[in-house]
Amino acid sequence: MRAAVYHGPRDVRVEDVPEPELEAATDAVVRVTHTAVCGSDLWFYRGDSDRDVPSTVGHEPMGIVEAVGDDVRSVAPGDRVFAPFKISCGACEFCRKGLHTSCVNGEGWGGDNGGAQGEKIRCPHADGTLVRVPDRYADDEDALRSLLPLTDVMGTGHHAAVSAGVGAGDTCVVIGDGAVGLCGVAAARRLGAERIVAVGHHDDRLDLAESFGATDTVAERGDAAGERIRELTHGGTNHVLECVGASSSMELATEVCRPGGTIGYVGVPHGLDGGLDLFDFFPNNLTLRGGMAPVRAYAEELMADILQGTLDPAPVFTKTVDLENVAEGYRAMDEREAVKVLVEV
Amino acid sequence: MRAAVYHGPRDVRVEDVPEPELEAATDAVVRVTHTAVCGSDLWFYRGDSDRDVPSTVGHEPMGIVEAVGDDVRSVAPGDRVFAPFKISCGACEFCRKGLHTSCVNGEGWGGDNGGAQGEKIRCPHADGTLVRVPDRYADDEDALRSLLPLTDVMGTGHHAAVSAGVGAGDTCVVIGDGAVGLCGVAAARRLGAERIVAVGHHDDRLDLAESFGATDTVAERGDAAGERIRELTHGGTNHVLECVGASSSMELATEVCRPGGTIGYVGVPHGLDGGLDLFDFFPNNLTLRGGMAPVRAYAEELMADILQGTLDPAPVFTKTVDLENVAEGYRAMDEREAVKVLVEV
Repeated sequence: MRAAVYHGPRDVRVEDVPEPELEAATDAVVRVTHTAVCGSDLWFYRGDSDRDVPSTVGHEPMGIVEAVGDDVRSVAPGDRVFAPFKISCGACEFCRKGLHTSCVNGEGWGGDNGGAQGEKIRCPHADGTLVRVPDRYADDEDALRSLLPLTDVMGTGHHAAVSAGVGAGDTCVVIGDGAVGLCGVAAARRLGAERIVAVGHHDDRLDLAESFGATDTVAERGDAAGERIRELTHGGTNHVLECVGASSSMELATEVCRPGGTIGYVGVPHGLDGGLDLFDFFPNNLTLRGGMAPVRAYAEELMADILQGTLDPAPVFTKTVDLENVAEGYRAMDEREAVKVLVEV
Repeated sequence: MRAAVYHGPRDVRVEDVPEPELEAATDAVVRVTHTAVCGSDLWFYRGDSDRDVPSTVGHEPMGIVEAVGDDVRSVAPGDRVFAPFKISCGACEFCRKGLHTSCVNGEGWGGDNGGAQGEKIRCPHADGTLVRVPDRYADDEDALRSLLPLTDVMGTGHHAAVSAGVGAGDTCVVIGDGAVGLCGVAAARRLGAERIVAVGHHDDRLDLAESFGATDTVAERGDAAGERIRELTHGGTNHVLECVGASSSMELATEVCRPGGTIGYVGVPHGLDGGLDLFDFFPNNLTLRGGMAPVRAYAEELMADILQGTLDPAPVFTKTVDLENVAEGYRAMDEREAVKVLVEV
């Protein structure tokens, strides 16, 4: 079968690789129909993080179940499913409390289960991992395109909003205009925020943020960004969604968080080698909450709203490629031509 | 009048200083009867933090109101009162939401209001700052000794427990066996914790921790401490009270916090020049909450329990000196002979 394989910085090729097969009784094999390129894929693509060479890539799979092991109960061949970026058993202490990213049996995509940017994957712990799309929408391309972000960015943006404590009537600030930040805006609106200030550096993305529910946008950089946000929020906000993970964005989050407020952070920390400066947090009683988003926990709840049409993250896909052209998708995201790339397999 | 004056590292002298007088209509002058030496006083005492020389010191005052300005309504001359370590107006946004340490009119003790280790202080914003002791207990020395820690350490330990989300039936870990850590143990028990693991390095203080409600104590150091705590808590706890503020204690807190758990921190960050390593927080979705404790917000609630006898932080005072011998109090705390020193003025 064909799959995207990483060979080194800026070198992703689609090649023939062995087909994954059922190994354990709790496995499923899924024929991938839709997947995506993620902002976090750019770290190895740019050489900023290590990754085995060669290795299969991709972690946002949606497709049709092809085969299931004897112990799989929740899905059957022919079902339309998608899976979060992390595999989870659904049965351990952490899965049961909704923290699937800490699953004691958890693992990521790639390696011997196959990368999600390929024709097939083997899904371990299929009952705990796969989310079944209701049959009525199983072949509805519009619905599938809207559901695909639940594999990662929509659940992650929602985690930022939940972690920041956003509720009805709140004012919040969303830092980052990538796919996660945009989904954070949509999540904050869904949770009832009355005022949503989106912060980014790209006019087209801030326009998207407005269409997702941002009431204000801030494109300033450096000190000017903080000043503008404090002006808009009368001195700072109680709810900051930090959707980047860079030291500069965490500093800005701290600067615009009102005393007693909460920063919900979901950007994988990078460039934070100096660590987080607690001297900014301590006097103001700022709370830091968040981390790697347990998107499996949020999938059913968010799917319900997507299917009833009150939430639609599909516009984060500003470009679509087929699997053979996945390298073009990486390039377009690397050069910020595309917010997020959908890959049709 | 007489007051303790800081002249440089390990040089605190009691001297004649000018008496404070009413300046604003919202001021009160309080004749101090009881005060204390705080662990945080040791930072300037040891030369670890800067402080003006000479300057009056102390921030935990209790006494009798001597005079009030025309606008003061809640206290009158003759009332027994105490005040938190920070002055707060009681009327601003932050005071109204219980975050008195972020009061927009706030200030600390010392300078022109006088240090609390002296015969008199001028209390700005008397209505927002002073807590009146019910008349029935106004001259009850045992009650006053138990109430005095509400000026700082008892409210701070309570803030750690509240910030860590401790509730009925919980297991928690309290890091630090100083006065704040001990009060954290008492606060956790008061909030209903079923299992309280106290962590420190001094047998006598850990004995005190047990008398305050600790069900287990851990005296190990380094890696052994983390191992022992994880063993006792079946792999980590959801509620950690970080009551030290050093990098080693924050690292231990991170190490023993269960995925999805919360670290309530109240130790002023020191020795954390490298910052907080988010790489430990992100994958496990740890929450960091806390900061400078708004002890004014907690004073009435905790006072009620102290006066009804269900909470008693008085044993943190393991030594008592009179004002003229306050230097001996600093010495005893510096050399860890005393947990906390009460100063009779």
